[in-house]
Amino acid sequence: METLILHEDPCSGNCYKIRLTAALLGRSLERRFYDITRGETRTPQFLRDVNANGRIPVLQVGAHDEGGEGARFLPESNAACWYLAHGSALIPEDRFDRADMLRWMFFEQYNHEPNIATLRFWLSVVGEANLTEAQRGQIVAKRAGGEAALALMDQHLAQREWLVGSGPTLADIALYAYTHVSEEGGFRLADYQAVVDWLARLAALPGHVVMDRR
Amino acid sequence: METLILHEDPCSGNCYKIRLTAALLGRSLERRFYDITRGETRTPQFLRDVNANGRIPVLQVGAHDEGGEGARFLPESNAACWYLAHGSALIPEDRFDRADMLRWMFFEQYNHEPNIATLRFWLSVVGEANLTEAQRGQIVAKRAGGEAALALMDQHLAQREWLVGSGPTLADIALYAYTHVSEEGGFRLADYQAVVDWLARLAALPGHVVMDRR
Repeated sequence: METLILHEDPCSGNCYKIRLTAALLGRSLERRFYDITRGETRTPQFLRDVNANGRIPVLQVGAHDEGGEGARFLPESNAACWYLAHGSALIPEDRFDRADMLRWMFFEQYNHEPNIATLRFWLSVVGEANLTEAQRGQIVAKRAGGEAALALMDQHLAQREWLVGSGPTLADIALYAYTHVSEEGGFRLADYQAVVDWLARLAALPGHVVMDRR
Repeated sequence: METLILHEDPCSGNCYKIRLTAALLGRSLERRFYDITRGETRTPQFLRDVNANGRIPVLQVGAHDEGGEGARFLPESNAACWYLAHGSALIPEDRFDRADMLRWMFFEQYNHEPNIATLRFWLSVVGEANLTEAQRGQIVAKRAGGEAALALMDQHLAQREWLVGSGPTLADIALYAYTHVSEEGGFRLADYQAVVDWLARLAALPGHVVMDRR
C-alpha cells in the first residue's frame, strides 16, 4: 500500500478529522508534527515542499523514493478525508446523498469552523488577554455564528441519527472534530441535546480515536 | 428529466457558480429570485421550506407534484455544483485529482470567498460608509487574505492551464465566480497575470454564460 503521511499539529481539530477518518477505516498513517503557534508551517522549507499555503493539515500520498507519481501533497482537511475514504461507506453512493454530505462539509468550513474553532483557538490557546483589537471586535459575531451553526445541526439531528442517510459519513466526522471540543470556545453543549446524543454515537463507533491535547 | 430549480440572488457569485456549471453541461435550470439585501432569505417561509440556514443559493431537486422523492433542497454552492456535474468530465475520475479538486473548492470557501467576496459585497453593494465598526476593523485582514489567495492561485496557474489535471473542473468554476469580479472588491487582477490568462480560458469555454448584474 502507498505511504500516507499526515503533516499535522496534533491539537488541531482539522488534523484530527483525518486521523479519525483513517482510524475508522482501519488505515494507519505516519505522522509529522508541527507547532503552528511557533510558525513551523511558515518556514521556507514547508512552503516549498509541503504546502505553499502555509497551513496544516496536509496529507502526503506516496514518498519520494517510491517511484510512480512520487510524493503528492493534499491540503484542506476535508479533501484529505475524502481521499482516504474513497470507495468506503463513509462516502454515500447515492447522487443526492453524496452532494448532501459535501453540503455539510462546506457548511463546516464556512459556518462552523471559522466561528467555533477560531473562538476555541483564541480563548483556549492564544488567551483572551493576548488578542488583538481586531480579533476582540469579532468575538460577538463569531459567538452568534457558532450558536447558529450548533442550532442548525441540533434541529437537523433531532429527527435523525446521522447528518446524511442512515449511517455515519465524512459529514459527521468533519463536524464532530470541533463540535466535541466547542466548550473550550465557550459554547454550552447542554443547550443542544440532539448534538450531544450524536456526539456520543460517533464516539462509540468501532475504531474511534480521541484527539490529542497539549 | 427531474425538475431543477435554483433559488438565488442573481448578483451573488455563489449562485452564479451553479448557473455556470449547468450552462457548461447544457442543463437548464428554473430560477427563483430573492434579494438578500432585503432579507428575503430570512423569512419564516424560506427558513421552513427552502433552507433553515437562511442562505442562498439552494438547488431544488424535484418538485412536490412529481412523486418519487418529491422536492429535495441542497444548500451550499459547491455541493450544488457537485450534484449537477455528477458523472461528467467536470469531476475527475482519478482518486487523487478528485480529492485535489475538492481541495481547491474548500480553499475557495475558506480562504477566498470570505475575503474577496465579502470585500466586494461591503465595498460595492453595502458601501464603505455604511459598514459597522466591526466590519471596518476586518478590512485590512481581509485584504491581506484575499491577496494571499490570489497569489497562491497565480503561483499554481503559472505552470498549468487548469487548477487540477488537464481540463476544466468544478475547482475552476468555483474559483472563477468571485475572482473574475474581484476588482469590485478593490483587488488588482493585473498583478496576477497567470490568473488573468486562466480567467480568459474559462470565459472562452463553449456554453459559458456571464454573471447577472444589478
